[in-house]
Amino acid sequence: MLKNVIFPERPGEEELKARLKAAREKLAGQQTLIKEHKLPVLVLVEGWGTAGKGSVIGQMIRNIDPRFFKVAPMDQPTEEEKRKPFLCRYFTKIPEAGKFMFLDSGWMDEVTRNRVHGEMDQKTYEQRIDSIRRFERQLTDNGYLVMKFFCHISEKEQKKRIEDLVEEIDTRWRVSENDKWQNKHYGKCLEVFDRYMEDTNNPSAPWYVIDAKSKKWAELQALEILTQGIEIALQNQSLAVPLLQNVFPLEKVPKLSEIPLENKSLSDEEYKEQLTKLQNHLKELHNRLYRKKVPVVIVYEGWDAAGKGGNIKRITEALDPRGFEVQPIASPEPHEKARHYLWRFWMRLPKTGHIAIFDRSWYGRVMVERLEGFCSENDWKRAYNEMNEFEKELHDWGAVIIKFWVQIDKDTQLARFTDRQNTPEKQWKITDEDWRNREKWDEYEVAVNEMIQKTSTTFAPWHILESVDKKYARIKALKIVIEELEKVLK
Amino acid sequence: MLKNVIFPERPGEEELKARLKAAREKLAGQQTLIKEHKLPVLVLVEGWGTAGKGSVIGQMIRNIDPRFFKVAPMDQPTEEEKRKPFLCRYFTKIPEAGKFMFLDSGWMDEVTRNRVHGEMDQKTYEQRIDSIRRFERQLTDNGYLVMKFFCHISEKEQKKRIEDLVEEIDTRWRVSENDKWQNKHYGKCLEVFDRYMEDTNNPSAPWYVIDAKSKKWAELQALEILTQGIEIALQNQSLAVPLLQNVFPLEKVPKLSEIPLENKSLSDEEYKEQLTKLQNHLKELHNRLYRKKVPVVIVYEGWDAAGKGGNIKRITEALDPRGFEVQPIASPEPHEKARHYLWRFWMRLPKTGHIAIFDRSWYGRVMVERLEGFCSENDWKRAYNEMNEFEKELHDWGAVIIKFWVQIDKDTQLARFTDRQNTPEKQWKITDEDWRNREKWDEYEVAVNEMIQKTSTTFAPWHILESVDKKYARIKALKIVIEELEKVLK
Repeated sequence: MLKNVIFPERPGEEELKARLKAAREKLAGQQTLIKEHKLPVLVLVEGWGTAGKGSVIGQMIRNIDPRFFKVAPMDQPTEEEKRKPFLCRYFTKIPEAGKFMFLDSGWMDEVTRNRVHGEMDQKTYEQRIDSIRRFERQLTDNGYLVMKFFCHISEKEQKKRIEDLVEEIDTRWRVSENDKWQNKHYGKCLEVFDRYMEDTNNPSAPWYVIDAKSKKWAELQALEILTQGIEIALQNQSLAVPLLQNVFPLEKVPKLSEIPLENKSLSDEEYKEQLTKLQNHLKELHNRLYRKKVPVVIVYEGWDAAGKGGNIKRITEALDPRGFEVQPIASPEPHEKARHYLWRFWMRLPKTGHIAIFDRSWYGRVMVERLEGFCSENDWKRAYNEMNEFEKELHDWGAVIIKFWVQIDKDTQLARFTDRQNTPEKQWKITDEDWRNREKWDEYEVAVNEMIQKTSTTFAPWHILESVDKKYARIKALKIVIEELEKVLK
Repeated sequence: MLKNVIFPERPGEEELKARLKAAREKLAGQQTLIKEHKLPVLVLVEGWGTAGKGSVIGQMIRNIDPRFFKVAPMDQPTEEEKRKPFLCRYFTKIPEAGKFMFLDSGWMDEVTRNRVHGEMDQKTYEQRIDSIRRFERQLTDNGYLVMKFFCHISEKEQKKRIEDLVEEIDTRWRVSENDKWQNKHYGKCLEVFDRYMEDTNNPSAPWYVIDAKSKKWAELQALEILTQGIEIALQNQSLAVPLLQNVFPLEKVPKLSEIPLENKSLSDEEYKEQLTKLQNHLKELHNRLYRKKVPVVIVYEGWDAAGKGGNIKRITEALDPRGFEVQPIASPEPHEKARHYLWRFWMRLPKTGHIAIFDRSWYGRVMVERLEGFCSENDWKRAYNEMNEFEKELHDWGAVIIKFWVQIDKDTQLARFTDRQNTPEKQWKITDEDWRNREKWDEYEVAVNEMIQKTSTTFAPWHILESVDKKYARIKALKIVIEELEKVLK
């Protein structure tokens, strides 16, 4: 990429001015179209130190209304950010539909910086490349425009700029140690940058190298490429993309109808005895988890009235409140709906050493969103792989992932609905929507079966909790959580 | 890819049968939609020897009307095919809009076979990968559905099949030497296949690995993936795709308006003397060209009545008629229009040692097709890069590429048009269309300037022939042809 890109020649002053003016006006006009078409635009500006990334962004935003864009200068990850998966601080910054997000360096800088300093081995590098390819593909597959710029200057030019900046007391602060280091190791950096760009040059989110030797000229190139990219993206609404083949190892799981629900019960006595024992054990494990900084993600999905809430409660009772959060997931808020559907879950990830319990989750994509037509068929069919990829990121980060499907039969649900309806203090728990969903039981069962088959990866399999007897389900959940935690704490 | 793909479990007989039936019916239904939507579908079936590529294709075509598909078994390249660029025998086989083409192994097989046998060094391999990526991207960018299957079996399974086939005298012929070789070097082949598939796994034309252990099951997987791919492709009509940055070295060329046309003339005497001398020289070079098997591609573009025909004639007069072809390019025929616009030029490439002279060319895409709206804006804007890529293939193959723009001014054209109109024996040379095009002179000039700027690569630059005096232009053309040929014959 860097080695074989060919720059057009810088135009004369007059032409440059005229084209800059034209490009600015074009961008100003496009911002309303972007708004109308609900197109989210992510602009990543990477490049050599002192190449002028900031001024390129400055130029691009000059003609955009401040309500329509944000700029995020991505410094080195903070201690807090280091306790999240690598991609988290980038995924959480994606723009909402109809808006721009400009990133002043990002995931390329983070990976290549570690790489040139010899702090990242080949295996980790390849894992990062996989993550990044998936990340960018998930964005473009979901309708994002992703524009990736690299501001390029020569070794000599960088040296000159550093010297000029250092000379003046007012500009000295703008030269970082990393800039100086880069210039001393320019050849090595060039190799690593070039390799990285080749590795991530997906045609749907290709790299654009900017000749950054002269400021105005760099700005013009960036503006012209950006507006061209927007023009093309505006033409492609509701795009369907190929469904990729599964590459994650799957566990064989039974269909819901094959799971016996009889004889899965406990007496009150058995229940109490085991509950106390298991909760004490879990409490002890939680401490070790915290010390070892292992993150844990627990997902609850299941039929309405299956007993998710009570089950979660038996887990949390055993946990130190400073070390866990329960995340109840309802329909997305407008600002959540305006982004990639996984965004709100990336926002809710625990820190290392913490436990996040999701009461409903990203799997809504292939259940309610599928059945109610809240997303296209291509969207939900693609989602199985996207969710596996998401959980792979969590797994690679070191997380324990435990997914529960709380299972009851149709009759049990009816009995519990009727009970809720007839018991004044339980009436708030039952809504018209619950009854409507119940009518679609069979369609849901098809969707749930498909979901369980396609997303029971070895690193994040589904566990079925037979919950006609809630006591049985609670004890089973506790046992599974303990077992999974012990595996990783050993 | 091969190493980390996870196959779903083979369903039971009954389910298998039901799903096969459903998939076949779906495909049968899709063929008319494909016809209606003019979707071209290229299905590439690669895989291990004896994995059953043929029977997978057999199953796929069973329910397609014979008018709608073709099957091409790609053996090793013939001697004739070896005298064309590597991609030529694949590019010329692409289907027309609304039809299927099934390839029984193809460019993957050719590259990996050479690679495992140690007949292709790393550099050539990388060049091939670049070519293949560009080829597949050009197809999908231009609205083709490209489905790539790999039929996978284990070393043990392959061994068993070979043994079974060899045992029977009637089936022995079906086992090739290559199949046996593969099985003996299974591990090495697996490495090379896997690397290749990783290198070419573009999300817009991803690989699908088929578990080919059982025949019916393999057929079902292929059918289900194919129909799913078609379903998605049918949703995406007239897709616009990102314009890639130029990666080819360009030469600086002047704008048409900057080219002086005065004082570019020769006396009859000078002309005759030089013509004889140069044509004799060219004749001699043509023999050496033929012996050294260098292919030559000469392109003529220029204003109507600029003198292309007469200029070409002065070249061909010097050539042995068995060693060249003139290709006059008019509007595409229906079967040409139904394919990628470069297809008809791939079809007309010379063999090594031959000269092809194109009287008008692929550059129509960014002139007449652009100005008359015969293709979308995204199409012609993308074409500069696609044509450079095309010429890069020719260059890598060893071709000499010479491109002439025959230049006159507007007044000269008017004088020649009027002369043609008023001279009975020349009237056939002037049509209403010529006059209509003349009205668009200024728009054409913008398009030609852009074309010349963007496609003057160092390996295939444009040469301007000042042709107000046709004699001058002819001598200049001969000199350039001789110079370029001498470069390569030295």
